[in-house]
Amino acid sequence: MKEVKISGGKLQGFKRVTTREGKFIMMGVGARDTLRKMLAEVTGKKKEKITFKDMAICKKSIMKILSPFYSAVSTDPIYGYPSSIKYIPKDTGLILSVEETGYQAVGETKRERKSSFISGWNVNKVKRAGADAAKLIIYYRKEVKEEVREHQKKMARKIGEECERYDILYILEIMSYPLLEDEIRDRLNYAKRLPEIVTDYVKEFSKPEYSVDILKIDFPADLKYCTEFAKGEFDGKKRRAIYSLREIENLCKTIRDISSVPWIILSGGVGIKEFLIKVKLASDNGASGFLGGRPLWQEAIKFYPDAGKMEEWLITGGVDNFQKLLRASENATPWFSHKKFESFASIELKDGGENWHKNYQN
Amino acid sequence: MKEVKISGGKLQGFKRVTTREGKFIMMGVGARDTLRKMLAEVTGKKKEKITFKDMAICKKSIMKILSPFYSAVSTDPIYGYPSSIKYIPKDTGLILSVEETGYQAVGETKRERKSSFISGWNVNKVKRAGADAAKLIIYYRKEVKEEVREHQKKMARKIGEECERYDILYILEIMSYPLLEDEIRDRLNYAKRLPEIVTDYVKEFSKPEYSVDILKIDFPADLKYCTEFAKGEFDGKKRRAIYSLREIENLCKTIRDISSVPWIILSGGVGIKEFLIKVKLASDNGASGFLGGRPLWQEAIKFYPDAGKMEEWLITGGVDNFQKLLRASENATPWFSHKKFESFASIELKDGGENWHKNYQN
Repeated sequence: MKEVKISGGKLQGFKRVTTREGKFIMMGVGARDTLRKMLAEVTGKKKEKITFKDMAICKKSIMKILSPFYSAVSTDPIYGYPSSIKYIPKDTGLILSVEETGYQAVGETKRERKSSFISGWNVNKVKRAGADAAKLIIYYRKEVKEEVREHQKKMARKIGEECERYDILYILEIMSYPLLEDEIRDRLNYAKRLPEIVTDYVKEFSKPEYSVDILKIDFPADLKYCTEFAKGEFDGKKRRAIYSLREIENLCKTIRDISSVPWIILSGGVGIKEFLIKVKLASDNGASGFLGGRPLWQEAIKFYPDAGKMEEWLITGGVDNFQKLLRASENATPWFSHKKFESFASIELKDGGENWHKNYQN
Repeated sequence: MKEVKISGGKLQGFKRVTTREGKFIMMGVGARDTLRKMLAEVTGKKKEKITFKDMAICKKSIMKILSPFYSAVSTDPIYGYPSSIKYIPKDTGLILSVEETGYQAVGETKRERKSSFISGWNVNKVKRAGADAAKLIIYYRKEVKEEVREHQKKMARKIGEECERYDILYILEIMSYPLLEDEIRDRLNYAKRLPEIVTDYVKEFSKPEYSVDILKIDFPADLKYCTEFAKGEFDGKKRRAIYSLREIENLCKTIRDISSVPWIILSGGVGIKEFLIKVKLASDNGASGFLGGRPLWQEAIKFYPDAGKMEEWLITGGVDNFQKLLRASENATPWFSHKKFESFASIELKDGGENWHKNYQN
């Protein structure tokens, strides 16, 4: 039988952010700039006029109502943690992000995206604050200039090292984006490249040098260009189909085969209907679950500043979204069943045994 | 309304080691020297011949079967953590001890007890390993020579400081013991002093200089000398009654009034029947629950080395003990209802607000 060693802090992290069955059924309330934009739209204020309090009220309502349902919640340390930490129950895992919202637009075309860390915040604080995992988002396209690409990789490596130092779980989220001229002109060209973009970056960040525990990735295709949904299934807009559902399923299987660690699906800006299909397709073909953001709770924001009405939506529509996501992910692969581990029985504490307490790193 | 500030790591700790209702329903599997003695007796081996494996097998069975029931489990990092960490489920809090088993017998009579820390282990490792709280046991009698008394206090203060540094919950367990000539000669004299001993040390370790979050204390009377139980209720041995049940209830209320932090009851070496009454009396009169050790699981050890039979006892007798303890503690005061906090609504994140992530200590 296989035997895989894992450190105590990371083992605790895996248990705490998953369900008892080992699946990632997770909600993200880490949006900052995006939430600010949504609030500007709803209130008719300028984006700059949206206050800390506006942001905090929204995050608090979402967390208070929905965090008891999910296996873990992910949030930011600026608005999310201070407003919501009281409301995350004992059996919901806590994930804190380390990246600054958005990106710096660089390169000749100003379309290359460079990420950065939240100033005054770090993995040590994530651990001290009682979180079970640290999460980093990096934007990634390998076609950017070398300096930008290396910058993104270096960030991913740095958090990997720090998570080992503090013995905390590391979730690396990689986000692709339209970069090349033809992709900007026509989204179809981006959709065509997506399978290769995602498989490529999964290969890259599967390397041991990044010390990633969980890869959070784009769904490897744009369903709006899939034969079965191209007639405007999600937004009423017809598109040319470029891949079949079967091809997309095979794509997920490819990712299953190349990812060296358990992987989960991000939601990005899609609606709940589209996200549910992605979660189902990914979970049926090797993913260990999802960490979904806006699609899970964005409807509530429309009622801002009426917190009562927001919460009425959350306890109805928000809970309904959760139930549907739970069903969509029923075939997700438990983290310990990923080929890295094989089974729960294969897992052994690193340096476990008589002198564990002495050998365990300080 | 009262407003009490609490740091994020400590708030997470309180949530994680209590039930959703805020009560401490906790099992201790931290026994080392005592378990060694029990195993020596059962196997007929000398105490020195009991191996790491013997100890690990017992702790693993107890944790595997019973940890899912309790709000938290407390264990040692030598045998308990390496053997059992896989089996503690996500919603059971984890407490790790920092004190070496037993004590050094010092002073003229060699009856004064001096505690020490586990070598090669510390609060930083407790936090790294994914625990929710650190626990320190100190033996304490104020009648010992000053050097011993100050040594014990210094240990308590040191862990208090380190728990603040790593922002982790601090459970200080104080254990009294028979020390004076007349107490050794006749246990009745010790029983007579117990109320004063416990109220005295609760006063001492309630001082802010120790930074204690939860006091784990001796039940403040010996029930074997209580009018209602002195006829041999627990061990068939008749004794002279020195206090009534009413007096003992009032003693608990005195502790409730003087303890500056939530307090819980330790089990020591008593049987389950006696411990249940103590838990009931304490919980009805201000305690926030219990952390019980041997009485909860010691029957299982009698079957060692037959792990199958041990586990048969645990899934029946062990679970029965849990159910009875749960009922006995039903009136326990939630941690947030202790006068230190007053209510959950009074609790606010320390430095919460716009710059929390920057101001939060590194």
